[in-house]
Amino acid sequence: MSIRNIHQLLCLLCCAAVMPVFAQTAPRINADGTVTFILSAPGARSVTVEGSFGEALKMHRDSAVWTCTTPDPLPSEMYTYRFKADKRLLTDPLNPRLVRDIDDTLSYFILDGDPGSYYQRHDVPHGEVRQVWYPSSFSTAMSRRRLSLYLPPTYGEGDRRFPVLYLLHGTGGDELSWLDMGRLAEIMDNMIASGRAVPMIVVMPNGMADQDAAPGCSPYMTAQASHSNVTSWMGRTEAAFAREVVAYVDSVCLTLTDKPHRAIAGLSMGGMHAMAISANNPDLFHYVGLFSPQAVTPLTDTNIRGIKRVTSAIGKLVDRSPLVGEKTRARYLRGAEQVADVDVYQHLDEKLREQFARAPGLYYIAIGKDDPLKTFADRFRRRLSKQGCPYYYHETEGGHCWENWRRYLIDFLPRLFK
Amino acid sequence: MSIRNIHQLLCLLCCAAVMPVFAQTAPRINADGTVTFILSAPGARSVTVEGSFGEALKMHRDSAVWTCTTPDPLPSEMYTYRFKADKRLLTDPLNPRLVRDIDDTLSYFILDGDPGSYYQRHDVPHGEVRQVWYPSSFSTAMSRRRLSLYLPPTYGEGDRRFPVLYLLHGTGGDELSWLDMGRLAEIMDNMIASGRAVPMIVVMPNGMADQDAAPGCSPYMTAQASHSNVTSWMGRTEAAFAREVVAYVDSVCLTLTDKPHRAIAGLSMGGMHAMAISANNPDLFHYVGLFSPQAVTPLTDTNIRGIKRVTSAIGKLVDRSPLVGEKTRARYLRGAEQVADVDVYQHLDEKLREQFARAPGLYYIAIGKDDPLKTFADRFRRRLSKQGCPYYYHETEGGHCWENWRRYLIDFLPRLFK
Repeated sequence: MSIRNIHQLLCLLCCAAVMPVFAQTAPRINADGTVTFILSAPGARSVTVEGSFGEALKMHRDSAVWTCTTPDPLPSEMYTYRFKADKRLLTDPLNPRLVRDIDDTLSYFILDGDPGSYYQRHDVPHGEVRQVWYPSSFSTAMSRRRLSLYLPPTYGEGDRRFPVLYLLHGTGGDELSWLDMGRLAEIMDNMIASGRAVPMIVVMPNGMADQDAAPGCSPYMTAQASHSNVTSWMGRTEAAFAREVVAYVDSVCLTLTDKPHRAIAGLSMGGMHAMAISANNPDLFHYVGLFSPQAVTPLTDTNIRGIKRVTSAIGKLVDRSPLVGEKTRARYLRGAEQVADVDVYQHLDEKLREQFARAPGLYYIAIGKDDPLKTFADRFRRRLSKQGCPYYYHETEGGHCWENWRRYLIDFLPRLFK
Repeated sequence: MSIRNIHQLLCLLCCAAVMPVFAQTAPRINADGTVTFILSAPGARSVTVEGSFGEALKMHRDSAVWTCTTPDPLPSEMYTYRFKADKRLLTDPLNPRLVRDIDDTLSYFILDGDPGSYYQRHDVPHGEVRQVWYPSSFSTAMSRRRLSLYLPPTYGEGDRRFPVLYLLHGTGGDELSWLDMGRLAEIMDNMIASGRAVPMIVVMPNGMADQDAAPGCSPYMTAQASHSNVTSWMGRTEAAFAREVVAYVDSVCLTLTDKPHRAIAGLSMGGMHAMAISANNPDLFHYVGLFSPQAVTPLTDTNIRGIKRVTSAIGKLVDRSPLVGEKTRARYLRGAEQVADVDVYQHLDEKLREQFARAPGLYYIAIGKDDPLKTFADRFRRRLSKQGCPYYYHETEGGHCWENWRRYLIDFLPRLFK
């Protein structure tokens, strides 16, 4: 080798950044099923790790490195976590797996088994994920809204058409929530490959009435997730759904467009949306899923007046507070003014009777025993029973959390389009 | 309102999480163009903010809140940054805008103007982004690889076919790099809307030979970005490109399949790949862009032997080090064994002469004055000149960084398909 070649070679290798080859994958999954967290924090006085695995764990210093191991083996699941070093939250610098949950970015890991293996990518055919923008007219400020699509692995090979599941997120979520926290693409790939679910299109719209797309993806909502679900309860999302979302998807995708091949499901606020959208469109959806549904006891005229009063009080606070940025203020007030389309919540008993008179293939309600919204779900179930509307009820452990919503999806999917 | 209604209303409002309405958007862009960073870190002893805006800034304590303002107004750009509190790096908890750059997750903000406005989403027609998996045979372990697609706003309205730009990432990057750090979808939307670029399809494959998809998206590379570009220099990505990537895209997208409607460009390692792929397929690409290209002086047999020796030494180190996890070790050794397809780098003078004999529409080379790879680019330009191969050269300020690559793209796009 000439000097010039050696110089060239060294430059090549310097560029190669070989160091990360030595990086440790974190956290460490031990042979006994416990998990060890590691954080290099030389100057810290106290460090804990907190996450979806249970109570926060105190970490112990070993020279500059802080570690701790879960006292028990963890069951199979997708776990999110963060460190708290001297009261400051931080993600795991050794773990590049990050996921956004509304406004929080969290580190995560997945433990194999049931259900964790559903959330891992395996060597099976993979579907396609698309982010598309569709024309919308329900907000004068935003002429386009974004939605995510999952297309099954055989989509586009020939003219074959597929059934469609419309899958809705909760308050503060967006068109990416089911893909990120919900592991939708991995679950679909794995369940289609094993034959537990039929190949289907999954449509994930953005259900927040005052935003058009996820944070950072929009000209309007550039920085923050929207939490103003007061405005998202006022029916605009639901009223526009059939003529905007369903019509668009049917116009651009290879969909089966008859009722037996359409399902709608949602979590929390999305459960309420799924209820209202399906009740207002009794000829559209043969399958309905309400996962930990929020406020399924419908809004009445009285409640709406009350909410308007409270919203107005919050509005005045927003208007005065020096802590509120101009954009947030403008957006909030814009949202508060656009209260409309409450029709979708009115005459609900009649609408439900009409929906159930046409015998839906499945009306599925799932909720955790510890969910603070359980009393609402119970009341809504009584209301259904009183109207003579049969439903399938799945009560589980746990509360209002993604662990449940992913499992509800896995339980729900095999019941569709059979 | 009845007591029951009030209870229901309170529950609704508790669920509404109205607090984040009051959250401040960070960092603060001041009227004079300076930027103020804010971090609540009550226990910290020293805090700095470091980022792409220049030298790290020392932050000052004001009760529990640390702040600092840039000494000068910042020019229009997309800026990434992190805080360092007592030696620990953390993203900005007040700013939900995060972007991944290889293994680092960074906070970012964008200042309007030129070029920043290109990187913002505006109210113009938006193209579609897809992640798809295509069959691949160049690695026995991975039968599918993932790529990202940008489809222009009018794609799919009728049978209209579009020209295609293949856009390649650098070492450690993946099929998401141009979308995340590169703001590809926003740049395309804005340049197509203003007429500065013609509507085109952009294909962003994964060019790392030992990974099939971005971290967290693959069954094999579940945790970490790949930095083993020693194996990614060995020609496997380039040798398979035409028969796998181009053939797949032409089979599933509405592409114009003749040479005048195909372009290829890449940054750093991707620039080297674009050079090798276009030289080995002289009938495929009419437009070629090398952005800060890496090692465009081709690998010779001698160098490859040298790299094999160094790789083998690193391999032994990987094999022995207790710091290396089993998966990393296995992957590294698998990659190191699969050195092959060096044909694409051989007889390059002849290949370049053949390529230029067919008069490419554009052969574009851009690099910054401070780029450590500039000597390679200079040498490659002399080599081109010696072979009588005309090229367009764009030399800029700055170094090996995304600020330059985004600008090179904006400079390159208007020259395509005219």
